[in-house]
Amino acid sequence: MNQPLKVNLTKELLELENFIIHRSCDIEQWFRAKWLENQAPFYGSVDLRNSGFKLAPVDMNLFPGGFNNLNPDFASLAIQAASVAIEKVCPEAKRVLIIPEKHTRNMFYLKNLYQLKEILKNSGLEVRIGTVDIGISESTNIKIDEDDFITIEPIEKREDFLFLKNKDGSEFIPCSIILNNDLSGGVPEIIKNIGQQIIPPINAGWPTRRKSSHFHYFSQVAKEFSSLTRSDPWLIDPLSEKLDNLDFSGREGEDRLVDSIDRLLSQIQRKYKEYNISQDPYVVIKADAGTYGMGVMTVKNSSEAVNLNRKMRKKMSVVKEGLSVSEVLVQEGIHTEETINSAVAEPVVYMIDHFVIGGFYRVHTSKSKDENLNSPGMHFVPVAFETSCLMPDQGRPCHDKANRFYAYGVIARLSMLASAKELAGKD
Amino acid sequence: MNQPLKVNLTKELLELENFIIHRSCDIEQWFRAKWLENQAPFYGSVDLRNSGFKLAPVDMNLFPGGFNNLNPDFASLAIQAASVAIEKVCPEAKRVLIIPEKHTRNMFYLKNLYQLKEILKNSGLEVRIGTVDIGISESTNIKIDEDDFITIEPIEKREDFLFLKNKDGSEFIPCSIILNNDLSGGVPEIIKNIGQQIIPPINAGWPTRRKSSHFHYFSQVAKEFSSLTRSDPWLIDPLSEKLDNLDFSGREGEDRLVDSIDRLLSQIQRKYKEYNISQDPYVVIKADAGTYGMGVMTVKNSSEAVNLNRKMRKKMSVVKEGLSVSEVLVQEGIHTEETINSAVAEPVVYMIDHFVIGGFYRVHTSKSKDENLNSPGMHFVPVAFETSCLMPDQGRPCHDKANRFYAYGVIARLSMLASAKELAGKD
Repeated sequence: MNQPLKVNLTKELLELENFIIHRSCDIEQWFRAKWLENQAPFYGSVDLRNSGFKLAPVDMNLFPGGFNNLNPDFASLAIQAASVAIEKVCPEAKRVLIIPEKHTRNMFYLKNLYQLKEILKNSGLEVRIGTVDIGISESTNIKIDEDDFITIEPIEKREDFLFLKNKDGSEFIPCSIILNNDLSGGVPEIIKNIGQQIIPPINAGWPTRRKSSHFHYFSQVAKEFSSLTRSDPWLIDPLSEKLDNLDFSGREGEDRLVDSIDRLLSQIQRKYKEYNISQDPYVVIKADAGTYGMGVMTVKNSSEAVNLNRKMRKKMSVVKEGLSVSEVLVQEGIHTEETINSAVAEPVVYMIDHFVIGGFYRVHTSKSKDENLNSPGMHFVPVAFETSCLMPDQGRPCHDKANRFYAYGVIARLSMLASAKELAGKD
Repeated sequence: MNQPLKVNLTKELLELENFIIHRSCDIEQWFRAKWLENQAPFYGSVDLRNSGFKLAPVDMNLFPGGFNNLNPDFASLAIQAASVAIEKVCPEAKRVLIIPEKHTRNMFYLKNLYQLKEILKNSGLEVRIGTVDIGISESTNIKIDEDDFITIEPIEKREDFLFLKNKDGSEFIPCSIILNNDLSGGVPEIIKNIGQQIIPPINAGWPTRRKSSHFHYFSQVAKEFSSLTRSDPWLIDPLSEKLDNLDFSGREGEDRLVDSIDRLLSQIQRKYKEYNISQDPYVVIKADAGTYGMGVMTVKNSSEAVNLNRKMRKKMSVVKEGLSVSEVLVQEGIHTEETINSAVAEPVVYMIDHFVIGGFYRVHTSKSKDENLNSPGMHFVPVAFETSCLMPDQGRPCHDKANRFYAYGVIARLSMLASAKELAGKD
């Protein structure tokens, strides 16, 4: 990325970034202590927003789908991190099975799958891909570019374990299952009650997981971290409220939604006033369980959430695979002020275990600053981070890329830490 | 490195490399199990030799001194590995003190020290360098290139802990001490009986450590590994014998040395015959405790070890810092067949914890193939490995760089594993 990254920081956020960069020893020591107490999820990605006055996660994905967008120069970092993760969760494993999402026609996703497989393979595992898609009844090769293809195979089950059939009639019995499927469509029968270890566990999927729970834990983590950095937790933590028993189609719970939006908007407005921010507050209404930018709505005024037209109501009612939305998270919207060549850029940080392995920007040239970039079809250009997120350069200013990425890595790790607590809390 | 690497492998070594590259999953699973049982030393470097019929370690350094020779592109790999190592051995550490070698005029060494400090700093530690050299009585800045310098400070001790004095009169009290001093000159009084953790432990230094012990454990490891690869352990394990109570100046023990050399040469000759190798066997006589290419002699015939001239006797009598040599390791010499642009090239692999973080070639244009490259003054050109040692490319031939380096990483890790056993055996 040779384009200049642009974002002007307020005094408070600059102070926080300064702390992060210049007191990285305190930061890393703090994290070391946290990771002793909390087992990081196997992998994850965090969507960040940088508004210039606030740098915060807006989403934490436990089934990351963009490994192909990372800088190939840092592939070895991912492999090393995966080695550590495997040593921790399944040291005896030799053969693993990746269970991917069903959408086998999405070339972006397939390329992600290929990279994930490469990382695991290079960390010393035999890796095959087995799908829960009953539409795939035999081993299928899918070309992903001129030289490479991936093979997706139907999963078989006997007693309590999954396996794949080899062409010669023998069986590939994985020691562990790596889930790269967020289970939006529910937990497939075939992966229930199996003896092999599933990584991350099934409860990391959307049938169980709730964004509100993640952000509940994130607020705790942000508070603790902010007592270290002596800054306002709001600088890194989006305000949010959870609402349940909604029915967008039947307009059930509209009044509570309006109350919630109004409450949040006025809280944000107070914060904006405190920090002399002249922008318009807005909130994002998201399905509490789900991903992929479905069931997401941006409003600056609660009235916008009431008079939904048919199309919007439908959009809000269902997320991926037709899952209906009755619980939402009303979350403080964070303006994306960061741009690359005047295009809006949203950073995404990738982690394996508690190691940042890279990241990329979702760069969108036509969207405005308060729209959701992770929309269906994903019409964004991924721009890989140019440096690793591991090395702050204390001799250089905050906006130096190495420093900015290090700070992003720190905030993303806070989100990973929140996920660690979130998954453990459910056990 | 754009120069072609050249070395022709025999059928047997090619088979072994093939196994390593194409069955990397078995290899990595094997290592995972080993690292569960054995705690790798904090760091280390392994000198390898590739004769085309044998690929083996000839030296294992627990106080590596060439971090500056590694490829800067993989700096993040070192940082991540250091983070893992620190989490294991001293998670609560925030401030560490590096104790370096005394030779503060060796610019190569100082550059190494700078890089080591950077790695530790970037893995989130406050790092300072404190010397045991009583010649340094105040904080000294040494320029190592146009932009950078390192600061070496005198160590202070109170009760059972070491510290540095800050300019304002306050104290820098390290949680842990990282030794980058092989203690050839003996264990300095000041670091004896201290409460802070010393990493690696003092018994990793030459006053206690013996090369023969390392190669004793290495032979065990090589045997186990070879039962996995179904190959002759000799392909990776140099034959050796230990001799003690020698006195090169007083010519004490010459007869035993001759016997040992003769025995080893005939063992090697038998192996050469078995594998149809037409080269001349030779042995290397090394001080059993010590490093830096002092006290090393290459002989093809036992008579060469008897009629030493005065100069050679002197050379063999002392190693670094005047330590006298009474114990030697007589080790099978391994021809360096690997060349870069017809210059002899000896690979060196660097590790932090059990992770390979890179390597380089010692390239020497004037030396012959059976001479020791690690000679005083080190007149070699370091050529950093171009790829990480982490990713074999199974679609490509063994001599492909990624594959060759992966194989080197595997053999080097065997040596690291031997060191883990070696250090534990002494406890």
